[in-house]
Amino acid sequence: MNKVITISRQFGSGGREFARRLADKLGFAYYDSEIITELAKRTNLAEEYINSLNEKNPVPLMPITIGHTFSPVFSVGFEQQNNLFVEQSKLLKELAEKSDCVIVGRCADSILKDFSPVRIRLFAELDARIERCRQRADKTEEYTDREIKQKINEVDKARAKYYQFYTGRKWDDPLNYDFLINTTDKDIKKLVEDIASVI
Amino acid sequence: MNKVITISRQFGSGGREFARRLADKLGFAYYDSEIITELAKRTNLAEEYINSLNEKNPVPLMPITIGHTFSPVFSVGFEQQNNLFVEQSKLLKELAEKSDCVIVGRCADSILKDFSPVRIRLFAELDARIERCRQRADKTEEYTDREIKQKINEVDKARAKYYQFYTGRKWDDPLNYDFLINTTDKDIKKLVEDIASVI
Repeated sequence: MNKVITISRQFGSGGREFARRLADKLGFAYYDSEIITELAKRTNLAEEYINSLNEKNPVPLMPITIGHTFSPVFSVGFEQQNNLFVEQSKLLKELAEKSDCVIVGRCADSILKDFSPVRIRLFAELDARIERCRQRADKTEEYTDREIKQKINEVDKARAKYYQFYTGRKWDDPLNYDFLINTTDKDIKKLVEDIASVI
Repeated sequence: MNKVITISRQFGSGGREFARRLADKLGFAYYDSEIITELAKRTNLAEEYINSLNEKNPVPLMPITIGHTFSPVFSVGFEQQNNLFVEQSKLLKELAEKSDCVIVGRCADSILKDFSPVRIRLFAELDARIERCRQRADKTEEYTDREIKQKINEVDKARAKYYQFYTGRKWDDPLNYDFLINTTDKDIKKLVEDIASVI
């Protein structure tokens, strides 16, 4: 069976860089936005639209009364998000069948559990994540710490709800992972050198 | 500066075995019950008594009214526990000054922060911890799962309160550690081989 490494990450913890470098180092395939591109091909949806649905909080509208019965009303976005999740899950399994790989996010730790993946989660102190976001941002963009913090909170909240909705487990529960790494004050490149030797 | 590795561990997660093997592998000094023995020498208290105070929930008695003022009343045990904590903290620093070392529990991650320790925490699924406790138990002893589970809960609750009292931080907050390792279904010996190469 191929080796699969899944990366869960708090926003701003350096997860994407870690995953890409780890895949390079190990000679594994690396899948992140590549998944969106392939999904767009398969579903004829625009990549931007898929992105807007993916890893977002999947909340159906509240039930409303029709006549005397309660009927759950789902938004079009919600149905499409579910279809997309199913399609994405198939794709993840195909990718894992194909070769050793590193996959970022997308509940891959849960979807690919039959592959016994090495499940890694990256996290960091909030200040360190703000700083990392700042360094990564386009130099022409100017954000206040407050704005970055708000963005971090929004993204992580959506990811947590997405994960909980589709796996029934808490995104930040350490028991969902094999190794959790605090990237505060850490050099991602150095960290990857170290971790690669473990895997 | 000497290299210091601190091990925080859920009861039954294999923390002691991990720490001892890691110290052996790296050629570091290993301190766990050795600390109690040394404290007993320095304080003229019995090791058993120190054990009974150490990593226990440090709760002073509730304030009672004397005349018209509130006065906190501390139990003798509470005062002694605090003195012991101070003595133990001094000892931990002396040990870290002496050589590279691995230290189990005792808020060492916080007390030795000036040594920039590698802070490791071990945890596992409850069932895996029950099983590990069973394997470790004296063969003449027969415990039910329920009894073991109760013991696990008691010990971890006391450790969590002890840690929070003396460091002001939550024992199970991942941000207190550099690496967290899920030992469920893992062979500790193999795990140590892997982790030693990282450190």
